Amino acid sequence: MTDPQTLHDRHDKQLVRQRLLQKGQQTKAAIIDTALGMAAQIGLEGLSIGAVADAMQMSKSGVFAHFGSREELQISVIREYHQRFEQEIFFPAMEMPRGLPRLRALFHCWMLRTSAEIDSGCLYISGAVEFDDRPGPVRDALASSVKTWLTALHRSVLQARDEQHLSKDTDATQMSFEIHGLILALHYEARFLKTAKSLNRAKQGFEHILQRYGATTQKD
Amino acid sequence: MTDPQTLHDRHDKQLVRQRLLQKGQQTKAAIIDTALGMAAQIGLEGLSIGAVADAMQMSKSGVFAHFGSREELQISVIREYHQRFEQEIFFPAMEMPRGLPRLRALFHCWMLRTSAEIDSGCLYISGAVEFDDRPGPVRDALASSVKTWLTALHRSVLQARDEQHLSKDTDATQMSFEIHGLILALHYEARFLKTAKSLNRAKQGFEHILQRYGATTQKD
Repeated sequence: MTDPQTLHDRHDKQLVRQRLLQKGQQTKAAIIDTALGMAAQIGLEGLSIGAVADAMQMSKSGVFAHFGSREELQISVIREYHQRFEQEIFFPAMEMPRGLPRLRALFHCWMLRTSAEIDSGCLYISGAVEFDDRPGPVRDALASSVKTWLTALHRSVLQARDEQHLSKDTDATQMSFEIHGLILALHYEARFLKTAKSLNRAKQGFEHILQRYGATTQKD
Repeated sequence: MTDPQTLHDRHDKQLVRQRLLQKGQQTKAAIIDTALGMAAQIGLEGLSIGAVADAMQMSKSGVFAHFGSREELQISVIREYHQRFEQEIFFPAMEMPRGLPRLRALFHCWMLRTSAEIDSGCLYISGAVEFDDRPGPVRDALASSVKTWLTALHRSVLQARDEQHLSKDTDATQMSFEIHGLILALHYEARFLKTAKSLNRAKQGFEHILQRYGATTQKD
């Protein structure tokens, strides 16, 4: 048996290790947060270990200790963006009953997030332009993150059909494509062209799509 | 009166000047053509006098002689893109009768051009992301070019309504927004996500929008 003093020492060392680890994780999270803010402004491709180190008032080697490469930093930023997207859109929508209420909530939160991003930019949209012809792990991470999200939208359309909130011949892929178009038009017209009332256009467009697929009520 | 020999000399000099001018214009057009190809791949912001000179196997000062600045080169590229867009989409559509046939042709040509650009990228979409938070003459040229095009779309919706090919309460701005969304979704899903059958999705979406606005026939 190990004597109590040795156990106590081991416990102390473990605590120190844990605290160091926590501190490291906090620093890493702070770096990602800063890098995400920068990516929204200057694009994922604009990110560099050096620029992020400057913004964090850290040394380049300090940032390198957390991310072995620029690519790894970019991928961590995409993961963080994905998580925030989930927290702001997916999780609140999941609180709503399956079917039309959840689909509506999904679109509503997505649209609100897109509007909030009118000033900062959407990583899924700017990243698509930056990486559409640059194969590699960053592009893969971005595309996989977007696909996860579009799959969630697709599933929620299917559920609305299964709950008979939409007509039974609803083509879920087609409907999701049309909904995606509204979000892209909202982002383009509001952010780039500064067209007034784009948010109302997107809302109205969504009602038109719902009507088309047999959801007859305006509110539910 | 001027004697015939002097007139002849003057005429010769004029011819030489004209030919030099023509040669200059041809070189300028060739530079713009190269720069446009490059912008489609690397973005408008990727363009530099030096890179274009390299691609043309010209000296930097040779390119500078035609474009006083990088900005001027970028704006010339946008103008050229605008003209090609007009030639491929607007002019063929204008050959069709006013109303629904013209609106259909407009969408059809726009969609085809977007598909053709799946490999090379669309300057109006990539440029919007590059310049959405960079004020200045390049952004202004790009936004004004896009707006000219969206205005033509809007006008063609109005004409279709006036021709009673669409229902009389058609909100032309709303309908144009929804059509724009389909094109953006086509570009995003086909180019970035490589989703199969995106072209069919866009076509189907257009039929849905037409139905929604009271154009009951599938073909006309």
